[in-house]
Amino acid sequence: MKVRVFDTTLRDGEQTPGVSLTPSGKLEIAKALDDLGVDVIEAGSAITSKGEREGIKLIAKEGLRAEICSFVRALPIDIDAALECEVDSVHLVVPSSPIHIKYKLKKSEDEVLDQAIKAVEYAKDHGLIVELSAEDATRANIDFLIKLFKEGEKAKADRVCVCDTVGVLTPQKSEELFKKITENIKLPVSVHCHNDFGMAVANTCSAIIAGAKQCHVTVNGIGERAGNAALEEVVAALKFLYGYETNIKLEKLYEVSRLVARLMKLPVPPNKAIVGDNAFAHEAGIHVDGLIKSTQTYEPISPEVVGNRRRIILGKHSGRKALMYKLKLMGIEVNEDQLNKIYNKIKELGDLGKYVSDADLFAIIRDVLGKDLKEEIKLDELTVVSGNKITPIASVKLHYKGEDRILIETAYGVGPVDAAINAVRKAISGVADIKLEEYKVEAIGGGTDALIEVTVKLRKGTEIVEVKKSDADIIRASVNAVMEGINLLLQ
Amino acid sequence: MKVRVFDTTLRDGEQTPGVSLTPSGKLEIAKALDDLGVDVIEAGSAITSKGEREGIKLIAKEGLRAEICSFVRALPIDIDAALECEVDSVHLVVPSSPIHIKYKLKKSEDEVLDQAIKAVEYAKDHGLIVELSAEDATRANIDFLIKLFKEGEKAKADRVCVCDTVGVLTPQKSEELFKKITENIKLPVSVHCHNDFGMAVANTCSAIIAGAKQCHVTVNGIGERAGNAALEEVVAALKFLYGYETNIKLEKLYEVSRLVARLMKLPVPPNKAIVGDNAFAHEAGIHVDGLIKSTQTYEPISPEVVGNRRRIILGKHSGRKALMYKLKLMGIEVNEDQLNKIYNKIKELGDLGKYVSDADLFAIIRDVLGKDLKEEIKLDELTVVSGNKITPIASVKLHYKGEDRILIETAYGVGPVDAAINAVRKAISGVADIKLEEYKVEAIGGGTDALIEVTVKLRKGTEIVEVKKSDADIIRASVNAVMEGINLLLQ
Repeated sequence: MKVRVFDTTLRDGEQTPGVSLTPSGKLEIAKALDDLGVDVIEAGSAITSKGEREGIKLIAKEGLRAEICSFVRALPIDIDAALECEVDSVHLVVPSSPIHIKYKLKKSEDEVLDQAIKAVEYAKDHGLIVELSAEDATRANIDFLIKLFKEGEKAKADRVCVCDTVGVLTPQKSEELFKKITENIKLPVSVHCHNDFGMAVANTCSAIIAGAKQCHVTVNGIGERAGNAALEEVVAALKFLYGYETNIKLEKLYEVSRLVARLMKLPVPPNKAIVGDNAFAHEAGIHVDGLIKSTQTYEPISPEVVGNRRRIILGKHSGRKALMYKLKLMGIEVNEDQLNKIYNKIKELGDLGKYVSDADLFAIIRDVLGKDLKEEIKLDELTVVSGNKITPIASVKLHYKGEDRILIETAYGVGPVDAAINAVRKAISGVADIKLEEYKVEAIGGGTDALIEVTVKLRKGTEIVEVKKSDADIIRASVNAVMEGINLLLQ
Repeated sequence: MKVRVFDTTLRDGEQTPGVSLTPSGKLEIAKALDDLGVDVIEAGSAITSKGEREGIKLIAKEGLRAEICSFVRALPIDIDAALECEVDSVHLVVPSSPIHIKYKLKKSEDEVLDQAIKAVEYAKDHGLIVELSAEDATRANIDFLIKLFKEGEKAKADRVCVCDTVGVLTPQKSEELFKKITENIKLPVSVHCHNDFGMAVANTCSAIIAGAKQCHVTVNGIGERAGNAALEEVVAALKFLYGYETNIKLEKLYEVSRLVARLMKLPVPPNKAIVGDNAFAHEAGIHVDGLIKSTQTYEPISPEVVGNRRRIILGKHSGRKALMYKLKLMGIEVNEDQLNKIYNKIKELGDLGKYVSDADLFAIIRDVLGKDLKEEIKLDELTVVSGNKITPIASVKLHYKGEDRILIETAYGVGPVDAAINAVRKAISGVADIKLEEYKVEAIGGGTDALIEVTVKLRKGTEIVEVKKSDADIIRASVNAVMEGINLLLQ
């Protein structure tokens, strides 16, 4: 039997502090999740706000394949709000630990139980699928937990869920706990884990091997505090390490990860497992050497399987073989002596704490192969004027092929960087057909005088180059990166 | 007995694709790690480059408390390089899986074993502490693994290490494997895990409960591909979930995390467990409500324990109680009706997909309480000139307390933003003592016309405000954020 995937990106994921989606943003993610193959979409918590209800309604009306669910407390007002949104199911959450019952609710276990069962009955009476969920279950009294679930079973709940609300499970405790629960409860059991100690994925998988049938996950592992169990990690671990299937189309994981990152404004860390940009990147010499012989040496699975790709990075840890591999990919032939020279220069750059970009590598190759750097287009002057009462403007003066031809242009933009890059684009438009594919900014350090790192990707036909430039001045960094990329493409 | 912490931030961590440290950067991190309490510092791989050796030497000569180690292959040339750096120990790594032995080395198991033991003997003869490490051990033949370690034991290796090089362990397999190894080998056993399926921390802890005595970790979980087991997560999980002690001073975790992030240029994701800025942040209504009653409800440990802090964020998921709590902290009294109005406005902003910053909250409060916005200092004019051949300059004209007093200043800076903020600082220096504590830039979206989000933290005495502003123009966003923050602090 397949493990069911209950996605809570739009509920627990959206509860990431500082994150809010518009109703249309919610819908866009829900459609992507449906397409990805999740079984349940927890679209939000209907009681939260008017906009939240609009978003949930939009999703419920879209006619998706997945079951559409709303989070509710064991309160008729919450269930009514969910009903108003026309969801298929409710994730009905009941505090279950002494800490929650005593301090948060100031009630007794019996009162909580009574309220929970009445809410289940109310929801069932209104035709909803009910997943009865025990909040903070991993710090609860096990007897109370089983009693709650047994009563829920009698009240015709459809599933039960054990929430590790503050992320204190371990894989060992998870196996033990879920064994006890699944031995006592006939309904399908769900697992909902948080990542406060970095163990959400392992705890989730451990619950599955102990008999849980459904896992609660979020794309990119976003969520309250340290987040929830990451969808991509759980489904990949279940498949490749534990041998369980899900309905997830693995090859779409990377794409969905990036959609959620963009709409939630939460970038994916490079070293994120499965979907990070470094998840299949290699720099160290022995690693690249191994990969060339067999990708299995340093990759547990092929990147394409999860929609990601392999990246070979050069730096001070690279070996000669990595360099040879990269040069071969670039169609550049060198002799032994040249190879050594290029290799040593890369190591030198690395020792200076520098990242060796494509542009750096090109420059080194040119240098070593004795070819002159053909700086086809050279920046002579750049001036930018900006302020609060004027439209940002920029002028550039470029030399094309030496002093022969001067290209001067001015442009405006939405900001000073945009104006400057627009001016460069206009100036070169007559001599080269180059497109700016990507532009990224990152601040390194914390002050207004900190280094800004600009990464640009430029395309000429099918050829793409990536250039990184750091400067305390964002405009200068941006223009220099673009100019260097243009020159690389004009070689 | 305490679990020993073998930190490989400066070796496996620095192998993060694209990352390089200078020798002085390495030393700075090594000192912080020593101060944090790690038992072993793997300072690098001495064979890598001249700069790498300089870094390792610097660290070895610093007279730190921790054992200083170099990564080496089972080759005399590598061990000689380590000896040149005067390290205490070597982490001697030997490929152990059929994939690695057959494809990477093109050797037989016997040849590998022979080479490994000769290397151990060579290192021991030269007075080094030797940790004999099996690369890709989790895909190796268990009999070969035990044979390798037993031979190592005979050759007087000091410790052995099992590497989950491509991150394919599960907690269940980890327990089983380490049980077998520790039953057969008398030497202390180390565990080295990678995070390709998000289980490095759980696998590391599972090895410890099965008898391993030392864990390999990196600060922030950086490292090859998806990274290594994170130091902060492993030591916190060992202590709070499994009851094991280490020599780590937990209260320094946050600070060391930020140092490594800054020097490696790898920002810490907000939802990183233990040390992320969201690890103890709360927005959802029921969560903040619970926290007010007892922080234990939604926090597994107190943030101060690991040097982090609690953050209460307002947004569409916030409840009335969170708002009341926040207003109380701000010393603002409101009646029931006013509270409801403020509450509804926050929900409206949230529904628009907007993050509710301190500044937004202040604006809403002012609006609802019927007080005029006292814009003590108002930006009238801002002009910035920048380019490649000039020092960036900016002028500002501000009105202080209405039209009464005009503050005009000019300033230069390393870039246009720096110049503009310097001008504002100079202009207000006579009327208010306000410090810029933090300045952060993030690009949302991918073009030169994408929104730039600027976050500033300003301090007046003990009062701190945080303001976020988004604008396609980074200068405008920065100046507006600073101006708004100043006005908030002058209320």
